[in-house]
Amino acid sequence: MINETFTVAGMTCGHCVNAVSGEVAKIAGVAQVDIDLERGLMTVTSDASIDRSAVAAAVDEAGYELTS
Amino acid sequence: MINETFTVAGMTCGHCVNAVSGEVAKIAGVAQVDIDLERGLMTVTSDASIDRSAVAAAVDEAGYELTS
Repeated sequence: MINETFTVAGMTCGHCVNAVSGEVAKIAGVAQVDIDLERGLMTVTSDASIDRSAVAAAVDEAGYELTS
Repeated sequence: MINETFTVAGMTCGHCVNAVSGEVAKIAGVAQVDIDLERGLMTVTSDASIDRSAVAAAVDEAGYELTS
């Protein structure tokens, strides 16, 4: 398994965390999504490396922004 | 119709607004719920005056706190 960490801007509460993790979890190959709300960090665990643009699109779909 | 304004603590985003308004809208007699997120103000429109404890319970159920 591969862990990749991203920074997501705009999350303010548990509902935001659920919205983002729900969208990112739909990406093919993603096994787990862990979000640290205070730090705005999202760790994605997957079988193989995930295309960054797919992650950015999922975060955008949830209404937030992938910043790094 | 009667309009009553309450203060709700802890709302940070549109999901919070939806959670609170969804719970308060379930109270019998409530016709409309309007929330000003920035100011933390909730205006409840109803046929007759709503029991404050019912509003407090609904806000609590959503995970927030009625402060005034």
